[in-house]
Amino acid sequence: MPYNVRQLASLLALEFRGDGRRAITKVSGWGEADAGSLVFIDGDAARGSFPAGLEPACVLAPPSFADAAAAPFAGGVALILSPNPKLDFAKAALLLHPRPTGGGGRHPTALVAPDAVLGERVELGPYVVVEEGARIGDGTILSARVTVGRGCAIGEDCILHPGVTLYPGAVLGARVVLHAGAVVGADGFGYVPDGGRRWKFPQVGGVVLGDDVEVGANTTIDRGSLGTTRIGEGAKIDNLVQIAHNVEIGRHVVIAAQTGVSGSTVIEDCAVIGGQVGFGDHARVEGGVVIGSKAGVLPGKVVRAGEVYWGVPVRPLREYKRLNALFGRLPGMKAELASLKAELAELKEKLLP
Amino acid sequence: MPYNVRQLASLLALEFRGDGRRAITKVSGWGEADAGSLVFIDGDAARGSFPAGLEPACVLAPPSFADAAAAPFAGGVALILSPNPKLDFAKAALLLHPRPTGGGGRHPTALVAPDAVLGERVELGPYVVVEEGARIGDGTILSARVTVGRGCAIGEDCILHPGVTLYPGAVLGARVVLHAGAVVGADGFGYVPDGGRRWKFPQVGGVVLGDDVEVGANTTIDRGSLGTTRIGEGAKIDNLVQIAHNVEIGRHVVIAAQTGVSGSTVIEDCAVIGGQVGFGDHARVEGGVVIGSKAGVLPGKVVRAGEVYWGVPVRPLREYKRLNALFGRLPGMKAELASLKAELAELKEKLLP
Amino acid sequence: MPYNVRQLASLLALEFRGDGRRAITKVSGWGEADAGSLVFIDGDAARGSFPAGLEPACVLAPPSFADAAAAPFAGGVALILSPNPKLDFAKAALLLHPRPTGGGGRHPTALVAPDAVLGERVELGPYVVVEEGARIGDGTILSARVTVGRGCAIGEDCILHPGVTLYPGAVLGARVVLHAGAVVGADGFGYVPDGGRRWKFPQVGGVVLGDDVEVGANTTIDRGSLGTTRIGEGAKIDNLVQIAHNVEIGRHVVIAAQTGVSGSTVIEDCAVIGGQVGFGDHARVEGGVVIGSKAGVLPGKVVRAGEVYWGVPVRPLREYKRLNALFGRLPGMKAELASLKAELAELKEKLLP
Repeated sequence: MPYNVRQLASLLALEFRGDGRRAITKVSGWGEADAGSLVFIDGDAARGSFPAGLEPACVLAPPSFADAAAAPFAGGVALILSPNPKLDFAKAALLLHPRPTGGGGRHPTALVAPDAVLGERVELGPYVVVEEGARIGDGTILSARVTVGRGCAIGEDCILHPGVTLYPGAVLGARVVLHAGAVVGADGFGYVPDGGRRWKFPQVGGVVLGDDVEVGANTTIDRGSLGTTRIGEGAKIDNLVQIAHNVEIGRHVVIAAQTGVSGSTVIEDCAVIGGQVGFGDHARVEGGVVIGSKAGVLPGKVVRAGEVYWGVPVRPLREYKRLNALFGRLPGMKAELASLKAELAELKEKLLP
Repeated sequence: MPYNVRQLASLLALEFRGDGRRAITKVSGWGEADAGSLVFIDGDAARGSFPAGLEPACVLAPPSFADAAAAPFAGGVALILSPNPKLDFAKAALLLHPRPTGGGGRHPTALVAPDAVLGERVELGPYVVVEEGARIGDGTILSARVTVGRGCAIGEDCILHPGVTLYPGAVLGARVVLHAGAVVGADGFGYVPDGGRRWKFPQVGGVVLGDDVEVGANTTIDRGSLGTTRIGEGAKIDNLVQIAHNVEIGRHVVIAAQTGVSGSTVIEDCAVIGGQVGFGDHARVEGGVVIGSKAGVLPGKVVRAGEVYWGVPVRPLREYKRLNALFGRLPGMKAELASLKAELAELKEKLLP
Repeated sequence: MPYNVRQLASLLALEFRGDGRRAITKVSGWGEADAGSLVFIDGDAARGSFPAGLEPACVLAPPSFADAAAAPFAGGVALILSPNPKLDFAKAALLLHPRPTGGGGRHPTALVAPDAVLGERVELGPYVVVEEGARIGDGTILSARVTVGRGCAIGEDCILHPGVTLYPGAVLGARVVLHAGAVVGADGFGYVPDGGRRWKFPQVGGVVLGDDVEVGANTTIDRGSLGTTRIGEGAKIDNLVQIAHNVEIGRHVVIAAQTGVSGSTVIEDCAVIGGQVGFGDHARVEGGVVIGSKAGVLPGKVVRAGEVYWGVPVRPLREYKRLNALFGRLPGMKAELASLKAELAELKEKLLP
């Protein structure tokens, strides 16, 4: 949805410089910008120079650009001044490229159980399957070949991309986004050994994703075995992540790609988890903790708030970095040890009869 | 399928206490239990107290509860006494919530090649595709948009969840469960370098999953390049696991999420593999070995029976734990080394002319 | 497509020995070979003996077999002599089992937008969806339930296996193979923090896969946020790999299973990356570098050409191996340190008043 510079600045509650009537049609990176683009400068880029010949419609820039910076741009490019250009760029992007919402179209191949309840403007792509008793909120979009199992409940304005599977009984809040191939509510992985063989532990619990959760492509979130797997409001989960049965992910938690969280582990609000991290079962990560990529958290471990962690098993980052540096100096330590030993032997030979 | 306490105890060959006529309709966790629930107490929980006001239909408990324990429960809750309550709870769950089996329904959108052979009671969901020459055993369920490639053979009473893909020629035993998005039989990853470019090594082998194998959501199991990839009877594989070409997984092996097994590696019967473990190619893990999460097994390595292993590369757990503890004491060792050095220098200065 | 020995040798520009009229119908491993099989001997196997009773149609073998080796085979098996039997076996496999190419069939359930442009011989399986403005090159095969989003461009002779999803605007070169469940063009993982909550950074860029790229099952390749994610010509990517937004993968790069590449990282031509490797964002791997499995590359790190790397964080392999060996000797170093300390104390006691 296009805006002119004046309108966009006003919607962002920011000041602008230059021609307020210039039309902005999209956000762009510097490399792809054209005459309809909004681009942004963050702190670092601001120190560099601008690509020759670039003339975007408008630049979101720090206030320090108010006087001096218009000069480098040809043709009178406009500026919108922001104390946090990247954040306002993200907000502007949502205005220029609004999140799609359902228009009520139902592809004739979409199969909906007679007793499923669909809200207004729900949009169903081709080969969608909605099973018995499912409820889908207003404006939600189910893309091609999404499967919604028996008794699922989906909130308003969700977007389920192609090939998503919700097992029976999964519950999604409002504005949830599930990327292609994500699977929500599969059986947890639990077996009880019995001599040589194994009995499946019941996997009959639930799975609930809060409002504004986003889940990446081919990520898997299992249902509870007994009880419920919960993903808190606003949590963002990347591609190919594994969330096991009975895990609780807090609000606004961020989890990067290929991380795995074992059964019954709790990650509290606002924690930030890198990629390829592994969590043993029944661990607890306190709120706001940051854990670096590839780290490992032992089963039952409590990871205390107020630190950044790294390593397998996790240690506070500063400690881990120091240990890792010393690891690299092991050859030196070994040599020093050998030389001390020789020196001592020599001394003893000289001094002892 | 509901039972009363007396019936369930009898089917489990266990004794009960209290009112044998109480109706049990489901298994539950303590947090979700209601008047129709069977719950269980394992050793540890037994030491705690019971939630106030909880009155499930029946509790599976150790024999030590026979006399003393009924008291804490209000309203005459019944007890079934088991030497292994968790195991009997799993068995009870299979009675109360029997595994679904096909009822013979075929959705009109299910496409079946004319020469495919379907057993009795095979159930086909919407948008299923069964290609030429495939054979499907009695009672098997293919959920929505499952694809069964040319010439596949599927045993009896299997359950393939939505979106599963079997490449041509894949073979499944009886009672196999494949969770949503699992892919069985894709090409292995093999190329022969030829100067700058690479030629694809032929990927024309087979893939065979034994009886009672369960495979997690979005897990991938490649066909053999030449020869066959084999998953043994009763093996349980979690979500997002990668099994490469020509791997052999033994019977009753357990593999947790996001583990990867490279080409031609063998994991023998009853081994237990944690999550995010990596196996190089042509390795061999002997029967019954336990490998901790995030461990790494080098190509060609033989991991001997009788131990628990951890680390990258794997070492016996006790050894690895000791090394890891010493890793944490590197700063102390470094300081000690420096102080010894200073002490020795001082001594030399004092004693040598 | 069958050939006789003489024809196949001629097509490979190699010499043969024995009966040139023997018919070859397929490639096989030694374990599965029959009278129509071509098998090969590489350097190592050549030292062993041949399975009793095996009589394949033809053996691809090193020239050293020309005189001596026919003897062990019964029934006059033919030899094709090659300086690189494995490479010529791969080439022969492509002749005997030619890559499938579209025959122009369109399943009646395939849905194609009216303005999509399909080349000649494009083959569409059941439940395929091709959205508005997509263009598909001659001979390309879209298998069952592939989804091609708005405005995608697909080159000639591609093969998209079941359940592949292309988000709108994805671009594939010629002869690209995407295995089942692969997702190309999902949103990158970028959010801008704003106090407690997060705003989605725009994910409006492109994704381009070059000619002859092969992508494994359930692998995910995100679109650029701004700008473009690029996979170079001839790159081979295994199953369950994560390629984040704005990553650039060079030509003929090989990436094994479950590796993850974070945003804006560059992996230059012909690099070879093991499985379960993790790359931080904005890293750069120079051309031809080899990185071992489970390694970790820190954000922003430049991994220089001319080395093999391993470890977390990566170090040159030789260095890492040495460090790892010393890690295993930490108990010895600790003991040595303690004994030196005791020795020194004893010496001081003896010599100092």
